[in-house]
Amino acid sequence: NINPQRLWDSLMETAKFGGTVKGGIKRLTLSDEDKKVRDWFKAQCEALGCTVTVDEVGNMFAVRPGRNNELPPIAMGSHLDTQPTGGKFDGVLGVLGALEAMRTMHEQGYETNAPVEIVNWTNEEGSRYAPAMLASGVFAGVFTPQYAYERTDRDGVTFLDELERIGYRGVEKAGAHKFQAMFELHIEQGPILEDEKKMIGVVTGVQGMRWYEVTVTGQDAHTGATPMYLRKNALLGAARIIEAVDAVGQKHQPGVATVGLIENKPNSRNVVPGEVFFTIDLRHPDEEVLEVMEKEFRAALEDILPAMKLIYDEKRIWNSPAVKFAPELIECVEHGAEKAGFAMRKMVSGAGHDAAYIARVAPTTMIFVPCEGGLSHNEGESTSFDECAAGAQVLLNAVIEHDRR
Amino acid sequence: NINPQRLWDSLMETAKFGGTVKGGIKRLTLSDEDKKVRDWFKAQCEALGCTVTVDEVGNMFAVRPGRNNELPPIAMGSHLDTQPTGGKFDGVLGVLGALEAMRTMHEQGYETNAPVEIVNWTNEEGSRYAPAMLASGVFAGVFTPQYAYERTDRDGVTFLDELERIGYRGVEKAGAHKFQAMFELHIEQGPILEDEKKMIGVVTGVQGMRWYEVTVTGQDAHTGATPMYLRKNALLGAARIIEAVDAVGQKHQPGVATVGLIENKPNSRNVVPGEVFFTIDLRHPDEEVLEVMEKEFRAALEDILPAMKLIYDEKRIWNSPAVKFAPELIECVEHGAEKAGFAMRKMVSGAGHDAAYIARVAPTTMIFVPCEGGLSHNEGESTSFDECAAGAQVLLNAVIEHDRR
Ligand SMILES: NC(=O)NCCC(=O)O
Ligand SMILES: NC(=O)NCCC(=O)O
Repeated sequence: NINPQRLWDSLMETAKFGGTVKGGIKRLTLSDEDKKVRDWFKAQCEALGCTVTVDEVGNMFAVRPGRNNELPPIAMGSHLDTQPTGGKFDGVLGVLGALEAMRTMHEQGYETNAPVEIVNWTNEEGSRYAPAMLASGVFAGVFTPQYAYERTDRDGVTFLDELERIGYRGVEKAGAHKFQAMFELHIEQGPILEDEKKMIGVVTGVQGMRWYEVTVTGQDAHTGATPMYLRKNALLGAARIIEAVDAVGQKHQPGVATVGLIENKPNSRNVVPGEVFFTIDLRHPDEEVLEVMEKEFRAALEDILPAMKLIYDEKRIWNSPAVKFAPELIECVEHGAEKAGFAMRKMVSGAGHDAAYIARVAPTTMIFVPCEGGLSHNEGESTSFDECAAGAQVLLNAVIEHDRR
Repeated sequence: NINPQRLWDSLMETAKFGGTVKGGIKRLTLSDEDKKVRDWFKAQCEALGCTVTVDEVGNMFAVRPGRNNELPPIAMGSHLDTQPTGGKFDGVLGVLGALEAMRTMHEQGYETNAPVEIVNWTNEEGSRYAPAMLASGVFAGVFTPQYAYERTDRDGVTFLDELERIGYRGVEKAGAHKFQAMFELHIEQGPILEDEKKMIGVVTGVQGMRWYEVTVTGQDAHTGATPMYLRKNALLGAARIIEAVDAVGQKHQPGVATVGLIENKPNSRNVVPGEVFFTIDLRHPDEEVLEVMEKEFRAALEDILPAMKLIYDEKRIWNSPAVKFAPELIECVEHGAEKAGFAMRKMVSGAGHDAAYIARVAPTTMIFVPCEGGLSHNEGESTSFDECAAGAQVLLNAVIEHDRR
């Protein structure tokens, strides 16, 4: 059995790397805070006798040998980066829960058949560098390393420069490191488990998601001296699109549609805005409906903006199709939850996860635990001591079950 | 007669302080670029034998003695700061047109009865530090120096710190420096003169204007895992207010209503926005209608936001009532335009100007010249060689006429 207090202490200890006054974490990928938590994680794994390697996009692998080291390892992985106003559990619980499972095996001298490892995937959040799940995507062959290297944050700083700056550009080719299976423990980030009073979510897949970037161009003009009828107000155009995107989500529930990021230029109180950049996030479990949502969103751009004398540029920058996880791993999770005596339910993830890309190259699945009010990507994100412990226990049980089989 | 080429050359020379690739100027108040143009302006005035003084909020006064130096000077004033994507003429023409008038008098050894002076007012634009016309407002007793000092830009840097940093905090009390009249030459920033093929706008007043700040608070949440019906989307709320503000302007034309600045938090592609800050600019020549516009805007906040489970905080941060200029100075402008043979028309300014505040403490008026397409607060802002010259000539004529009377 895992040690719940040790897990909790590690969660609270690492929450200091980027800790915010509101009790959350701001630990954007490849920032100084990210370097600190990586260094800490490496030291902890090495203390357990693990070998830690880093690949060319900064993914970290901490391997504990098994009885038969010819067998590819069984991986437990998630991410240590956060949103700008992120919580203490999203991603972190998956890595530190895996660390706790590893510490438990180490402490009890438990020998697995295959090696077991922990993976910390780079830039899962996609907040600093879009798209999300970038480095697990490179690992899975969805993106080239070059593509990842060239991503820029909103200040124009590249992924490569930051990766080198914090000293986490490894030599190993992404994807060269092989494992036989991956389990990812994560908080649900939605309200279902809490609603139904279930401790464990047995995740059968991930919904499809698509990201877009739009730039609307009008004309900078004086707010006081420019009559209403002469304006080309890019922000007014953007406001109408924000409304239309929301309507697409409302219409296609349980699909969702959101504008999360907006940049207005010149952003001055007495200038009619001449240019607005914003992003759109569309998701649905069914790819066909997602296709309809995309069509409706694009039709809204075309219906609304030219009539306002605004021009626009739109690009789909990410398409992550719906994913189904490996039945044999799902069984291991169910077995692990049953053994520990936790109520569970099957569910599809609304959030994207590294597991969604890893599922393309290895049998993969996920374990969810509840979070208060379904709230995530929020500094107030909260998963209890017992829920964190339950997740780590089921992770350990599932890995041992898979190893045993 | 003024020297049009010398005026144009000075306009082009100073346009380099903060010049942008698109041919505009980014010379935010109290920035390094502002310091450079101030230093340049001081040197030019001193070369004409003027005495240059600076008051406690950075307003600069360059005085040329007259025959009777007991008489208070006649002032010609405007501003050298610009918008973040400003043009080469807004404000600058008023100061450099005055400099050209002064140079002409100097060159021809013309002696006025009263001293004549040029004023460069600090922070007219209000873009870096709201509200606009801040230091002419202090001069006129509308704001205290302390109020100005405490203004912060969007990065939290105070007016006082920047004023001291660039070395333009003078010792003279704002308002202690007296003048008998002020003429401000400016580009129209609207389309009327161009439309009617008139060279000179005889400005009879300035419309009323009010600025507001609104913060809408919802809840940061995951875009993928948060169902549409559970959201408190602050950006969607802001979008609806942007739409409502525009409708207020459309309804009360020739009034105008604009959201020019917006800041979204946490501004991440996969976070439902939890907090949005934005500003509103309402204007109308008739204070009673402006009052109605304010009521309608406030009603929109109350109708729209609470129903979306959003809370908000709203503050009126500026109220600059409609202004009427001094009839005797208006006559001098008409006389000056007639003498030079330019077609003119009377008009009310849609933009705010330092003259609007100075009118409270001294007889004041303004002279407008056309700008292409009525475009201002835009890097493409364009007033021709001949139009600039016409403005400076009428300014000189009006000052001489006023001095003669
Ligand atoms: N789990 C998680 O928050 N992932 C970020 C990617 C996304 O779903 O937007
Ligand atoms: N003239 C001018 O652009 N002034 C700025 C103040 C305002 O009207 O918004």
